[in-house]
This record gives sequence, C-alpha cells and structure tokens, in this order.
Amino acid sequence: MFESKESRTELKSLGEFKLIDEITSSFKLENKSSIYGVGDDCAVLSYPDKKILVSTDLLVEGVHFDMVYTPLMHLGYKAATVNFSDIYAMNGKPKQITVGIAVSNRFSAEAIKEIYSGIEQACKNYHVDLVGGDTTSSLGGLFISVTVIGEAENDKSIVYRNGAKTNDLICVSGNLGASYMGLMILEREKTTWQANPNMQPDLAGNEYLLQRFLRPEARFDIHEILKAKKIVPTAMIDISDGLASELNHICSQSKKGCNVYEDKIPIDPETILVAEEFNINPITAAFNGGEDYELLFTIDQKDYEAVKDIPQISIIGHITDNEKEMSLITHDNVVVELKAQGWDSFRN
Amino acid sequence: MFESKESRTELKSLGEFKLIDEITSSFKLENKSSIYGVGDDCAVLSYPDKKILVSTDLLVEGVHFDMVYTPLMHLGYKAATVNFSDIYAMNGKPKQITVGIAVSNRFSAEAIKEIYSGIEQACKNYHVDLVGGDTTSSLGGLFISVTVIGEAENDKSIVYRNGAKTNDLICVSGNLGASYMGLMILEREKTTWQANPNMQPDLAGNEYLLQRFLRPEARFDIHEILKAKKIVPTAMIDISDGLASELNHICSQSKKGCNVYEDKIPIDPETILVAEEFNINPITAAFNGGEDYELLFTIDQKDYEAVKDIPQISIIGHITDNEKEMSLITHDNVVVELKAQGWDSFRN
Repeated sequence: MFESKESRTELKSLGEFKLIDEITSSFKLENKSSIYGVGDDCAVLSYPDKKILVSTDLLVEGVHFDMVYTPLMHLGYKAATVNFSDIYAMNGKPKQITVGIAVSNRFSAEAIKEIYSGIEQACKNYHVDLVGGDTTSSLGGLFISVTVIGEAENDKSIVYRNGAKTNDLICVSGNLGASYMGLMILEREKTTWQANPNMQPDLAGNEYLLQRFLRPEARFDIHEILKAKKIVPTAMIDISDGLASELNHICSQSKKGCNVYEDKIPIDPETILVAEEFNINPITAAFNGGEDYELLFTIDQKDYEAVKDIPQISIIGHITDNEKEMSLITHDNVVVELKAQGWDSFRN
Repeated sequence: MFESKESRTELKSLGEFKLIDEITSSFKLENKSSIYGVGDDCAVLSYPDKKILVSTDLLVEGVHFDMVYTPLMHLGYKAATVNFSDIYAMNGKPKQITVGIAVSNRFSAEAIKEIYSGIEQACKNYHVDLVGGDTTSSLGGLFISVTVIGEAENDKSIVYRNGAKTNDLICVSGNLGASYMGLMILEREKTTWQANPNMQPDLAGNEYLLQRFLRPEARFDIHEILKAKKIVPTAMIDISDGLASELNHICSQSKKGCNVYEDKIPIDPETILVAEEFNINPITAAFNGGEDYELLFTIDQKDYEAVKDIPQISIIGHITDNEKEMSLITHDNVVVELKAQGWDSFRN
C-alpha cells in the first residue's frame, strides 16, 4: 500500500561498514552522559549521580508490524518511542539507545536508512542519543531490536509496578483504544487492497487514529507534570498490551485488587465513532486493544487535589485489598470481573 | 545432528509471561551495580564512580549460526560471551546483559530454556547479571539480540581502537584460526550427514577446535594481567571478523599502518593439522577466519619487557607511519600487502 519510489542500492554492493558509516554520520550526541557513541566495540556512558534504567524490545515483521501498511520511517520512529515509553513508565528520562536491525536482501540500503531516519527523528524529538548498534542480514523478514538507557533522579524517584497501596487512586494519561482502532482501519483497507490492488486505501479523516497506531508518542510530559506537582506515583506501567493486562501487572505485583469505573475511562470521540463502524464496544478497545503507550499509575489519596484538574490525566478507579480481584463497574452500576486478555505473541 | 530428547511444551500453551517467569526465576543478581533486574518496565542500575560501556549484537539463524550443528545451550553461551568480549576489548568488565529472543513455533518452550541455560552458565562464569529481556515469536527462524553493559575504572583506563601510535607493538592473546577450523569440521560433517542421515558425525579428537567455534570464551584474563602489570594498551579490539579485518580497524581509525610477521602469529598445532587436512593455509585461517574472540591490542615500546614473557600474549608486529598500509612479512622475508576480507553478512 505504501510504496517508496526512491532509488535502490543493494545491501551487497554497499556492505555493512559503509552502511553504518552513512547512517550514523548524521547522528550527533547531545547528552552529557553520552561520552562516546558509535564506532568502537562499545559506547561509553557516564552516570555518576543518577540511577540508570535499561529496557530491551524486539520488533518482528509479521508479528509486531505488517510491512503492507507500515511506512519504514514510522516503524523506526515507533521502535524508538515505545522503548522511551518504558523509561517514562519508571518515572525516568531516556538518554541513549542502541539499535540492532536484521533484514533480508529484499530490503535495499535506502530502506534501512528510512528506518534509521525515523529513529533519528524520534531521538531528536526526545533528546536521546543513538550510541551503538548492529546491522546484519536475515534469511527472511525484518527484525528490530532496541535497547534504551535512561536516568532516574535517585532511588526514591523510581516508580516500580509493585508499589500500589489499598485506596490509592488509579490514573491514566491521554485516552485509550485509539491505536487499536487505527489498526482496525489499516487491516480493513489491506483486505480491500488485496482484493483489488488498484483501489487506493481510504484513510482520510482518521489521521489521528492512524498516527496513534503507526507513529505513537511516549508520554514525556507526565514525568514533568508530576515532578512540578511534587507527586511520585506509588506504581506505574505503560500501556502496551491494553489497560486490563497492565492493571493486572500492577495488581498482581502489588498483591492488591482494583475497582475501575467504565464512565471514567478516557476514550477519544473519534475512537468511539470508528468503534461503532466496526461494531466494537469502545470499552473493549480501551481494555484489550493495547499499543496506546499511555501511562497507567497509582497515587496516594492525598494527591487527589493536585491531580484532579490536570487535563492530561484521568482518575479511573482505586486500588482494593482484594488480591488479584479486578472489577469493572459499568455505566449501569453492574460489577463485572475484569480479565486481562492482553497480547501474547505466542498465542496470536 | 544434535537432537534433544527432552519433552516438548508448546510455546502457545505456556505463554510469554509464564515462560519468562520460569526462565528468570533461577537468575540471581550478584553485582552491586545491578539494583533491580527482570520484572518491571526497566532494569535499574547504579554506576556512581565508574564509566559505563554498552554494546549490542544480533545473532540470526542461518546467518550467524546453523541449527543443524549448534546445540542450543552452546548458542546461548556464545551469544553471551561474544558480547562480553566487546566489553573486554575496551578494557572493561561486563556486569549486566539483556537478552531478546524471537522464535518460530517450531521451537518448544524447552528449546528456549536451553538457550537461556547457556546464557545463565556464561553469566555465572563471568559474574554478569541478566537484568532484562524480551521473548517473542517470529514467522520463521531464531533471532537473539544481546545488549551487554559493563564498567571501566575511569576515563583513562578505557581503550579505544583509534589510539595506536607509530612503533607501538602489536599484541594478540591466545591463538588464531582454531574457531574457523572448528567450523570447517562441522560443515564437513553436515555435508556427510545430509548425504546419509544414518551416519554419526565424526567429531572425536577435535574437541578443542569445536569448542572454540561453538562455545567460545571471552578473554577476561587479559584485563587482569595488564592491570597487574600496570599496562594500558594504546588501542584494542576483539577478533570477531579475523585478524586482518581487526588490524584494519585499528590502523584506519588510528590513521596508521602496520607490519606483522608470519612466524609470530600464534596458531595452535591442532589448527595447523586440521588446516592441512582441508588444504587450507593456517595463516589464512588466522587472518581471515574470524570468531576467535581473542584480543588484539597495541602497547607502547616501553612496555615490551613487561609483556614479552606473558604466555597468553604474542607480539606479532608493530605500528608504522604509513597510513592504511598493512604488510605481512612472510617466513621467507617476502613482504605481502594484507587485505581485510573480514566478514560481512550482506556479502556472504
């Protein structure tokens, strides 16, 4: 569906070292913790007065993304931002990434550069340095591995999943389910296009949902907002597998339960509209859709006044003593047991 | 050729979270820089008084390893040690790794656990903590991505590739070419086995060469030896692509040339014997074979006395002023221009 009309340089003719040179020459280091980047056996970093956060992710063609509707630049951008999101989910700031890419020969050197240009854009937007990586061939398919390194101010500022206390308020940033509806639209247009390759995909009017899926942002702002209000969440996680799955992680690791309220779940009007088109309950998209990369966190009740009027944050429920019991209270006051379906690549 | 007779648990039936729990429960953190390991969005590390070294590698089935003759436990061990080697090549010590594994459904949960048991063994032997990772499915093939994090005492102890000075002595640890001859033996037995699957592979007597290829060690001892002798190399790299390629990296990044002497290149007698069987010049195996994971480094002439009697280290030549000119002086005193063929996954 998305085709690049650029010229094609075979990977064979360029070779690995030349390719890496061409790609990395435009990356500049901007963090003082980045002492030395690409070009030796290792990158060199320095974090004398901070704690260091590290997270790793693998993105696999056909499992995590579909090349039919994924522009390579967006793919690079997303591979970076979803990893940044893991650092924000610990209340830290991303500072460096390393990227490993394995591609088959059906990809050109230009294709790899497009992925890297997306990574570069994300690095610029989030002030993160690319400090290392590995580019190699695969017998089939495209694989991207990203490791992100970030900083936390100190021990006390780091927020784990396991710190939620009974009666803590459950908060979520932004809105949920939009990314999943973006995916639904792309899958629909793919089916249409496969039936008739002359058809142009009909994506107009749904730019917001598509952007949420194809080129998601990480919530760097929540870290700043909470810091300004002197709030340290008691537990936090980012929403990659869907609200239900992430609530389950916080509850089970904190040995607690939760009550959440259907009418408090933030859902964008566009998500509701498109969900209706697809005959999907928007609340299902919010709970089980995933890939929202919003932050789910719990705060002490004393912080209620400081949080309640922040437009980027919704309070959706509270933590209970009932270990592992997760309840959804519906519009009409019916209590439903919440099950984390989430997303498991081995089951999909 | 190598078959496991273990019971088979389908990945589907176990699921990602359960699998990760089962795998990581046996890993214990032993470094004080590892504050928090697997189980949250990020690992948490602390390096208040050290510089931090970071390196990333991708290992791809069919490109970097052949499942026909690669025992999964060795594969895990090697995936870890070749990354540790990158840290030693900067004169540092590896402390943490993160591992990403993507597998198709033809692999069982036991297969993934076998890979991890190799990683665990390597982590134990080198006192490295596994602090994070990602396990996911692929549409085909096995992909392993490893990021290793290590420490350097301080700025001055870090050894880059670009510090070689004219007249510096060129040193190499251990011996070269053995891994390549191990690969040759495995390829020969694979061909025989493919022609007649009832034939048992004939690997007896070549355990050393096979171990060098299948389950290489990283040279942790060189770091200790040099430290004890108060020697800081002027440049260093580990030999993954072959001596010629690594000499080329040091010379081109240092803007120097080199003379190396054929009769000084350390080659094990078993390598020479098997190379003759295969009608390969052992010096070719040493220069272009690769995967030795020995350390190649340069030292100031003043350190000659301190180095000359260390059994683990050979002095093989010296650095010259002639930028990028790399010469091999043969047994019979002929000067041959050295070309770095090295290894490029896009060209092989």
